[in-house]
Formats: sequence, C-alpha cells, structure tokens
Amino acid sequence: MPPLRTALLQSSGRPGAVAGNLRVLDEAAGRAAAAGAGLLVCPEMFLTGYAIGDAVPRLAEPADGPGARSVAEIAVRHGLAVLYGYPERDGERVFNAAQLIGADGERLANYRKTHLFGGFERDWFTPGETPLVQAELAGLRLGIMICYDVEFPENVRAHALAGTDLLLVPTALMHPFEFVAASLVPVRAFENQMYVAYANRTGQEGEFEFAGLSCLAGPDGAARARAGRGEELVLGEADPELLSASREANPYLLDRRPGLYTSLL
Amino acid sequence: MPPLRTALLQSSGRPGAVAGNLRVLDEAAGRAAAAGAGLLVCPEMFLTGYAIGDAVPRLAEPADGPGARSVAEIAVRHGLAVLYGYPERDGERVFNAAQLIGADGERLANYRKTHLFGGFERDWFTPGETPLVQAELAGLRLGIMICYDVEFPENVRAHALAGTDLLLVPTALMHPFEFVAASLVPVRAFENQMYVAYANRTGQEGEFEFAGLSCLAGPDGAARARAGRGEELVLGEADPELLSASREANPYLLDRRPGLYTSLL
Repeated sequence: MPPLRTALLQSSGRPGAVAGNLRVLDEAAGRAAAAGAGLLVCPEMFLTGYAIGDAVPRLAEPADGPGARSVAEIAVRHGLAVLYGYPERDGERVFNAAQLIGADGERLANYRKTHLFGGFERDWFTPGETPLVQAELAGLRLGIMICYDVEFPENVRAHALAGTDLLLVPTALMHPFEFVAASLVPVRAFENQMYVAYANRTGQEGEFEFAGLSCLAGPDGAARARAGRGEELVLGEADPELLSASREANPYLLDRRPGLYTSLL
Repeated sequence: MPPLRTALLQSSGRPGAVAGNLRVLDEAAGRAAAAGAGLLVCPEMFLTGYAIGDAVPRLAEPADGPGARSVAEIAVRHGLAVLYGYPERDGERVFNAAQLIGADGERLANYRKTHLFGGFERDWFTPGETPLVQAELAGLRLGIMICYDVEFPENVRAHALAGTDLLLVPTALMHPFEFVAASLVPVRAFENQMYVAYANRTGQEGEFEFAGLSCLAGPDGAARARAGRGEELVLGEADPELLSASREANPYLLDRRPGLYTSLL
C-alpha cells in the first residue's frame, strides 16, 4: 500500500460559530486535497469551538446531525476523509466526541472521550465507556482518541494491541502543557510502534490559551510533520512499509510480559 | 524532608575487570559524596562490564557475594547509598540484577531484570519474575528496574501505583536508541509523576556502542541532570516537595479508569 498523506488542521476556531468553522474546514480540506492528502484531522471540539461554556447542551448534536452532514459534503467535495471533534448529543447525555467521515461521505467511526480533563469538561460531558474505536482507511487501521486520553499510556497500548497503525488524536492542549505535544506524543508513537496524528487548537479562547505544536509522529519517534504556535495546515505521510520495518526492529508488543502487569487493573 | 541529591555515574567500565570497575566506583563515590550526594546510581552490569559474553556464568556471584561486600565497603567509606548492576548467581540460574546498598553497608533491595533485551541477554540470563522491588531512603520510596524494563509503560505505571517516588534505572542503552534516553525517560517521569534516574554506560564494548545521555528526569518531564556522550558524573536533586506539588497539578493516577484497561492483560 502507498503511504497515506495525512493533513493536520491546527486552527483557532470561533466558539459558537459553527458555520464559520465549517468554512475554515472547507478551505483547509481543499488545500489538503490539493497537496495529496487522503485524510484531514481537525482539533477537539472543532465544529463548535472548545470554550463554549454553558452553550454545550444547545450546540450539541447527534452523530448524524447537521454538522455531520456538512462535514460529509466537504469530504465528498474534496475527496478526502475528515476527522472532526464535536459535542455529541445522545438523549439527555452529551459526549465530547470525534467522528471520522470517509471521502464518500459515509460515517466510518465515532468516538466518545473516555478521560475527561478538568472542571469544564466534567461539568458538561458524560465520559465515554468504549475505549477502542477503529476504522480502516487506505490499508491502514485507524484508531481514535481525544486529547487527555493519549496522556494515559494504557489507552494507547490498548490500541497497539488491537493493531492500530495510525492513531488520530484531536486535541485542545493548553499552556503550560507543551511537553505533551513536544515529547509525550512522539514517545507514544515509538513505544507502541504506530503513527500518532495529534491535531491541536491554537490561540486564546476564553480562559484557555491553546498550545499549537500539532504533529504527526512516526514509530521511530520522529515527527513527520510539526506545526508551530499559530494557525497552520501541516502534512506528513503514514507509511505502512516503514511501520512494518520499524515493528520488526522494535518488538515491544512481542516482548511484553502481561502476566507481570496485573496491578494495572 | 530535604531533597535527595542523586549522582549518576556514566561510565565505560572494562569487561571482566571487576577490581578496576570497583576502583572507578570508589573514586566516583568519593566525588559524589563530596558534592553532597546521598545516593549514587551506576549503570547496568557495572560490576563486571556488560559485554562479557560467555564469561557471564564465571563472573556471576550471589547477591551477598564478594562484589556486594566491596560495594558495601565503598558505601560505608563515603557515607552514601549505592545502586549497581551485576550478574547475580542463584544456584544454576543467572539474573541480570541491580542491588541497592545503604550508606551503612546494608543490602536494601535486589532486583532481577524482568524484560531481557536481545540475543546476548536471552542467551545468558533468566528473566526475573518480580516486577516490583522498592526500598525507602531519605524519606523517598525508591524503585528499581533495569534498562529495557523502563521502555514498557506498564512497568513504570506499576511503580507509580505502588507509590515509587524515585525510580532507579541502571542501563546499557546502545546506539541507535538515543531516543529512549533523550525523550522516553523524561516522559515516563512526567506521565507517572515521579523522578527517574537513568544511569547509562558509554563507549564501545565489543559489538556494543553505548549511548551515554544519562539523566535524572523530574515529574515535570525536565531533566535535573543530563550527561553527554562521554564518561561523566552528573548530579541532581529529587525533591519531595516538588513531587507533591506536581502530583496535585497532574492527577494522572486519580484520573485513570482501570476498568477500561482490561485488554492490557
């Protein structure tokens, strides 16, 4: 299989301005497709903005809601898959979710954040209960998690054991946690022998100052793409052949001794 | 409690030259103690050298063998605790071990490497079966593992859950795995909110080219001490107060959801 060219949209986004955020996505998807990308990854809560406070219940929508239909149109128009974060309504509950939509407009996978971060998220969202959400794209097995989830080594290990090749992580990483983007994300890719696409917000939203530094980290721990602090679209390749060779040279999954890890549960 | 000043001996060491290696230790312990250190951490297989090939069975000794007695004399002479790596004989079996000896010469803890690396180690050593070895020193709970062990996030997480404050990791990290020392070790410290003292070999031994880059990483992911490529004694402080504050700001252990991690076993 040829490498999957993957674009990360590091964006500021306007809280509450869904139509405007969709225009940003449409423009970015056009640029990503023109650069040969087959997949575009957007930040956490991209659709609505992150700092929407008590507007969460009002802006939340079902996984097949109007936002999903708009994103599907964008995916079809530009011919690439899109992963975007949004507040998902399911009856009375609202989840911090991320949905993958294929280049044909089909909804491929929907993930609900399992590890909520801080007071704002715990006030407004219900934690997800399904740790492992995957989809197939271009011969790669994709996994999805959101922001704080990736900081727990257990979560990413579970994906590695389930064969995830490319882990997609929409995020809203804030100052002063730059270490997570700069160091932790590449280490996750290395220790689990996978690619990790970490797409962050940037700029100020309410009380939050987002850290940028989005990256596509490879199984050798090197960044294939790395954004700075501002708004940026960065691209890199997830290469199945490099992945195979790297896994052979770094057999972490084979060398595990699960019988010694019982205290983790 | 005041901080524990911790010294890392990044050393080349001569394969098979036990008496010479003990002289290196004695000299380093003198310098470390003069600089106020209460603990000196030596690399993996420090006592005998790493690349001793088929001399492993001959050079292996019990945990209370002559090497241990010599190290105890050095610890007492300079008034600081010493952790050193050595091949441990137990009947017919030989383990890749690390032993902690207190400033009073008492043997405080002995750890047998659970995750053996590569052909040489698998040919000569029996893997240890006890993942969690700890000891108390200067008000801190110390943990011990060896080299490849620390590359498995499960191992370090088990220490965090058992309250380890300062994880001691004698190592023999080779080129081209510099990423482990440079990035993975600080991430382990951050994600588990502990200090990690990673003491590496340096220079060429037989087929192995050791990578240096020993470090004492803090719970914020920053290196309190970082060696270069050559022989070096570096010192840094493990500070219980910084540890408490950092754990409050980064409540990873509280935010875990063990019920979602069942696939790890």
